[in-house]
Amino acid sequence: MSEGGPVLRVAVLGCGSVGSQVVRLLQEQAEDLAARVGAPVELAGVAVRRIDAPREVEVPPGLLTTDAAGLVARDDVDLVVEVIGGIEPARSLILSALEHGASVVTANKALLAEDGPTLFEAAEKAGRDLYYEAAVAGAIPILRPLRESLAGDRVTRVLGIVNGTTNFILDKMDSTGAGFTESLEEAQELGYAEADPTADVEGFDAAAKAAILASLAFHTRVTASDVYREGIADVTAADVASAADIGSVVKLLAIAELNDDAVSVRVHPAMIPRSHPLASVREAYNAVFVESQAAGQLMFYGPGAGGAPTASAVLGDLVTVARNHLAGSRGVGESAYAQRAVLPMGETRTRYHVAIDVDDRAGVLATVAMAFSEHGVSIQTVRQEGRGADAQLVVVSHEATDAQLSATVEQLRGMEIVREVTSVMRVEGRDE
Amino acid sequence: MSEGGPVLRVAVLGCGSVGSQVVRLLQEQAEDLAARVGAPVELAGVAVRRIDAPREVEVPPGLLTTDAAGLVARDDVDLVVEVIGGIEPARSLILSALEHGASVVTANKALLAEDGPTLFEAAEKAGRDLYYEAAVAGAIPILRPLRESLAGDRVTRVLGIVNGTTNFILDKMDSTGAGFTESLEEAQELGYAEADPTADVEGFDAAAKAAILASLAFHTRVTASDVYREGIADVTAADVASAADIGSVVKLLAIAELNDDAVSVRVHPAMIPRSHPLASVREAYNAVFVESQAAGQLMFYGPGAGGAPTASAVLGDLVTVARNHLAGSRGVGESAYAQRAVLPMGETRTRYHVAIDVDDRAGVLATVAMAFSEHGVSIQTVRQEGRGADAQLVVVSHEATDAQLSATVEQLRGMEIVREVTSVMRVEGRDE
Repeated sequence: MSEGGPVLRVAVLGCGSVGSQVVRLLQEQAEDLAARVGAPVELAGVAVRRIDAPREVEVPPGLLTTDAAGLVARDDVDLVVEVIGGIEPARSLILSALEHGASVVTANKALLAEDGPTLFEAAEKAGRDLYYEAAVAGAIPILRPLRESLAGDRVTRVLGIVNGTTNFILDKMDSTGAGFTESLEEAQELGYAEADPTADVEGFDAAAKAAILASLAFHTRVTASDVYREGIADVTAADVASAADIGSVVKLLAIAELNDDAVSVRVHPAMIPRSHPLASVREAYNAVFVESQAAGQLMFYGPGAGGAPTASAVLGDLVTVARNHLAGSRGVGESAYAQRAVLPMGETRTRYHVAIDVDDRAGVLATVAMAFSEHGVSIQTVRQEGRGADAQLVVVSHEATDAQLSATVEQLRGMEIVREVTSVMRVEGRDE
Repeated sequence: MSEGGPVLRVAVLGCGSVGSQVVRLLQEQAEDLAARVGAPVELAGVAVRRIDAPREVEVPPGLLTTDAAGLVARDDVDLVVEVIGGIEPARSLILSALEHGASVVTANKALLAEDGPTLFEAAEKAGRDLYYEAAVAGAIPILRPLRESLAGDRVTRVLGIVNGTTNFILDKMDSTGAGFTESLEEAQELGYAEADPTADVEGFDAAAKAAILASLAFHTRVTASDVYREGIADVTAADVASAADIGSVVKLLAIAELNDDAVSVRVHPAMIPRSHPLASVREAYNAVFVESQAAGQLMFYGPGAGGAPTASAVLGDLVTVARNHLAGSRGVGESAYAQRAVLPMGETRTRYHVAIDVDDRAGVLATVAMAFSEHGVSIQTVRQEGRGADAQLVVVSHEATDAQLSATVEQLRGMEIVREVTSVMRVEGRDE
């Protein structure tokens, strides 16, 4: 690098598990980063809540500040990395950074899923980049492929395992036969689940990521509140065993589909065939499966969380954003919106797996089949197993609307011959 | 788009299975492409060998030309898509296009693996982009993630299944127990293998891709002739069964590793554990597994060939290159080279699986173990199975240099107590 040439100055907001790894990589990879950016990349400051808090990386004391608002407004800051998380003050800081001419890299899924358009418009107005690869599926490059590599193709469907905690729990249930509570406790002991696991277990985290994936895949605006959401707290060992019986495995999926011009975006547990590429995603790993018209089926797999993996994604964005900043150009932005309707869950087409304990007498199967047929639901397979005085019926339906399917289950629950509907779960993923 | 604004004019060289799909997508996706590029994208011309040849897409007759050299030299061509393949005339046409100020997108793995640096220098000198996502693993976005998403990380290892034909054959052998010849014939019947399957079966195709992957992953220059190469023609049903016995599967792998400052680049069949993400890559699919310091383990999966998938990758590149062309900027180029030594195969550290038919008498195991030890090779596991008058020993070694391992096998072959060394294969991939 020639002396006196341009230097890229980076402010990092937050120095927790991700922020500290970003600061570490900025220091350790300084030479490589300079070569790839085309100019030295310098740390301008690190905003923290308390100067004297313990942290995983050594920051030169002069660079630490508790005045995040002051840091992003500084003239000598070219690039802001936001890894505080949450809605405020992250949103105000990002907006201020853009207004002051900085480009921004963020890992903030909650903010993007709640109020992405406000941020994108601010970036557009400022003529700056706002990149957020780290917000979905940690280190896995998925936003860039969706936005850039598939820019000449038409994505029709995205199926993602985007929450490592729930995948760890479901994988444990599948491999050991354990129940949900026991598996959650193991995840907590191993540090895969938090003491309050609500955000993960109830699907809130996955729903935020689903909103971001749907927005990018279909060039439209989807917020977290548009996403239909069911968590995994009600998944039982019996559900998991039922899935195994039909050669499937239970996963918490984030699903975004294009149906004509509307999108359907949802997060719920579903059975997928073991031969499907997503079925082999074990433990706390994440993966995103993409179907597009020309490319066909693609999958992106990797660690979905953790300080270092997330920091890797932040640095990848940082290199591109820094190059654009130097060149005075912008990357592919979010400008090309075609606002699409979001389909209500009731109108979304899906398939159900239903296990029913019934009286073991003649005509039961016909009666149950009639209930499906009355709601316009076609049955793909039905299996009947005698169990002494009662019997179990396992029905897998063809595609129907979620409203038709749930009405069918409602009717089954009220039928005299039905002792109990023991398992209801959606089925996704053709047997590849 | 405002009338009279800029228009991006694209010349397509070649109209075979990929070229015809590129032309089709340019026409069908015109509106989406214009929105994403920021200007209309128009077909300026399509260079073909014969105007009246049958083709899969309708091209307005005025746009067809047999004068490819004249087409790339035209002033009104902004962007050249090269999908002819092979070394010449592709190289001269790309160089001429760059000299005349066009940016280039190519799917030409053979040319890039043989003479990439010449092309990269020409692009650098012309201040234009040269993108080639489609050259490796078809539709799978792998070059862009390596070059951009992981730009702030340090890649240490790439393991790829980058040839669909050989993966189809090996998968068939694994699932049916059939031999190589029979499986190759089935692949040929189904159109997965060509009448002359040499380029695929002998690993030439995978070696070209390995060279490109290694160059990008380690920011160095590796050509196809630097790549150690073994094909799959000698893989037997017994090898595949031996792999199954140790919970593994045989795959043709393209491997690029960073060892200190040298790189090791090789293509050969290897046993990998069934729990490894690459083991679940079936049929003609491709996948690239990447290990990096911060991100950890990533995998990219999808169709590795075919007209439409390859065209999807070409169009993805085209959108980025077109945006850069309009902005007068360039994407992340190949500028940051650190020329690294390529390690000879003999010095590459690897592991061997060796199956040996031996006389069933006392002391045989000790004698065989001694042969390994004399060459400095440590044994990880050994399994002995009686088979009437003789016995089989199956040895899996710890890591040693390939020279030490092959010398050990050489010595075993000459030993009196050894009837036959029935299977020798490298072992890759930790049990994940």
